Amino acid sequence: MFYFFTQNKLTQTKYIFYKEVIMVYNFCAGPAMLPEAVLKEVQSELTNYSQCGASIMELSHRSEIFDKVCREAKINLKKLMKLDDSYDVLFLQGGASLQFSAVAMNLGLDDLPAGYINTGIWSKKALKEAKRFTDVVEIGSTEASGYKNVPKQNELNLSEPLSYVHYAPNETIGGLEFDYIPEVDCPLIADMSSTILSQDIDFSKFDMIYAGAQKNIGPAGLTIVVIKDTLLARSKLALNKEHQTMPMLMNYSVQSEHDSMYNTPPTFGIYLAGKVFEWLLDLGGISAIELVNQEKAKRLYSYLDESQLYSNPIAHANRSIMNIPFVLQCKSDTEQTAELNSRFLKAAEEHNLLNLKGHRSLGGMRASIYNAMPLSGVDALINFLKAFEQSTI
Amino acid sequence: MFYFFTQNKLTQTKYIFYKEVIMVYNFCAGPAMLPEAVLKEVQSELTNYSQCGASIMELSHRSEIFDKVCREAKINLKKLMKLDDSYDVLFLQGGASLQFSAVAMNLGLDDLPAGYINTGIWSKKALKEAKRFTDVVEIGSTEASGYKNVPKQNELNLSEPLSYVHYAPNETIGGLEFDYIPEVDCPLIADMSSTILSQDIDFSKFDMIYAGAQKNIGPAGLTIVVIKDTLLARSKLALNKEHQTMPMLMNYSVQSEHDSMYNTPPTFGIYLAGKVFEWLLDLGGISAIELVNQEKAKRLYSYLDESQLYSNPIAHANRSIMNIPFVLQCKSDTEQTAELNSRFLKAAEEHNLLNLKGHRSLGGMRASIYNAMPLSGVDALINFLKAFEQSTI
Repeated sequence: MFYFFTQNKLTQTKYIFYKEVIMVYNFCAGPAMLPEAVLKEVQSELTNYSQCGASIMELSHRSEIFDKVCREAKINLKKLMKLDDSYDVLFLQGGASLQFSAVAMNLGLDDLPAGYINTGIWSKKALKEAKRFTDVVEIGSTEASGYKNVPKQNELNLSEPLSYVHYAPNETIGGLEFDYIPEVDCPLIADMSSTILSQDIDFSKFDMIYAGAQKNIGPAGLTIVVIKDTLLARSKLALNKEHQTMPMLMNYSVQSEHDSMYNTPPTFGIYLAGKVFEWLLDLGGISAIELVNQEKAKRLYSYLDESQLYSNPIAHANRSIMNIPFVLQCKSDTEQTAELNSRFLKAAEEHNLLNLKGHRSLGGMRASIYNAMPLSGVDALINFLKAFEQSTI
Repeated sequence: MFYFFTQNKLTQTKYIFYKEVIMVYNFCAGPAMLPEAVLKEVQSELTNYSQCGASIMELSHRSEIFDKVCREAKINLKKLMKLDDSYDVLFLQGGASLQFSAVAMNLGLDDLPAGYINTGIWSKKALKEAKRFTDVVEIGSTEASGYKNVPKQNELNLSEPLSYVHYAPNETIGGLEFDYIPEVDCPLIADMSSTILSQDIDFSKFDMIYAGAQKNIGPAGLTIVVIKDTLLARSKLALNKEHQTMPMLMNYSVQSEHDSMYNTPPTFGIYLAGKVFEWLLDLGGISAIELVNQEKAKRLYSYLDESQLYSNPIAHANRSIMNIPFVLQCKSDTEQTAELNSRFLKAAEEHNLLNLKGHRSLGGMRASIYNAMPLSGVDALINFLKAFEQSTI
């Protein structure tokens, strides 16, 4: 029954873009593909926004026109995430990496450690940077087993009180995803850079969510922070701690009180993100895009699993639906893996399938299939994978 | 003789854009006008950069294509500024305001105060923020006299040793500009947000120059830092101070060692800035654009000075050639200044002269005439000012 419902919604879909076959499919992990329809709209009005005679980039952030753009982007993001007015949306700069510092500076407490879950390169980086500003404990890790799965809820060490818990629901490099939202007795903070707006989860279970825009939201240079009023209050206290100084600009309460305009915000990024939010709402919101995302991932993993050439190492329950790494198993006596990989990448490019090379720390391949990647792109990739596999036999 | 030379170069100019009459002139202080030719080129390739099939915004910052864009932007900026390889260019985020903190965090010293010159709202903000991270002394100020001029070289208090001297060569809000580069016995640091690349000065007199891009360089969200190797070395030491923790991302040596790619940089901003640098080189570099800038400012100030309605309060030697504030002197018995101002702004808009309203802290009007504002824009403004003045008599 559920299967039919899903299929039905997928075929009934008004998501014309998912049927469109576009010129080039870009599997880059970020900066990543943007929705074709959004890019075309941005292009058409680039020199003359809303008939005002100037580009959106040339308008004061304090102008009426831009103010409207910014307010609507905020409202639409909260609508997509189904969050009430106890949450504020901040449009910041510096990427998720600057938030690694900011979270600890703003939300660390003097008398309690912060709990970090380590499931890959990014969550470990967040932990390491936080240590520079606050006391940190690792409350769960799958590093020893090579990040093939995430710790289970009952494996998390939650025995001592914590200032907050931080984790990354999706690891962009490892292609590892949590299949549950941790239950904790303190504020829960998530780096959602590579998963935000891709699945219809209960965002109100989080006290703070942050994300670099360049995967599912917009251009690099915009960072989204969604934060609950209780944590804004905590960040206000942090500003006045004697032994801990943080840049005014990095303080969440300062940014919230100034509507993200303590200084000039990245206006073009906010404008473009606003268009992506509208595009998503128009498609039917996050639940609608999730159906497509699940279908894309299912098709790709199914093929990888049945193939003799390709494989993905991640435990099935924790496979990312956004970032799908895979390796080619070289069976030839005459060709080395490195040669096979470069032959693969060259052939993929010739088929207009770009940026499949895996992260330099892991090697192999990775297909990042964020919201803006249409089903047709995944189908084109699978067809290519099949043909390449056949050619190697 | 010099006059003729100047006039000759101005009329001989190949700067077609300066003869172009465009639809709307935007006098916004920032985000500000961008060169029309650059915007059109960006528009034309927005969905397909360099025939790669994807937008520049969709490309990995570690891709060959983007790497070339980034490297060329850096080389061209140094070419424009005539700086040798003892300087590095960093493409950062957070605006000049985040640099207020970063300068003090990276370059402050434990045993010496930093010297700040206070000539207006922005240099005072920089001083105030720096105090949160290092010991600061105000070595010169014209605040008491209402920021109508800058302190002279011999008025600067340079008797004690300083970790560095910081100042703003041009105050965007006050329209106040230094007519000299301070001579100091320590590193000299300048916030050039509103004046960078507008005048052919000796940039090698500075040890660090920073600027938000949104006035003379590109879109908001990109911050340029040009820094000498000696200060990079100092910032490296600052990273390991026990009592001072700064975000890794804010450390200059970390960013320099990673070619501004410690994490994802604002790729679209860098790309667009690169186009503006090329545009400037093509026009003949900074000395060429300075001729036009000086001419624009001369024409506007001349008219303001001879007018009965408008006036500019700044000492002649310190008048900014980028930001020209002026007030309207209400002589009517029946109309208040506020009404006159709003009538002026409405009429200006009807003449496609936008964003002439002064900063909220000062009131009155302000015409920001950065590099991208053509002479024709200033002429159109003067014609309007004249007509409006006549209509009020």
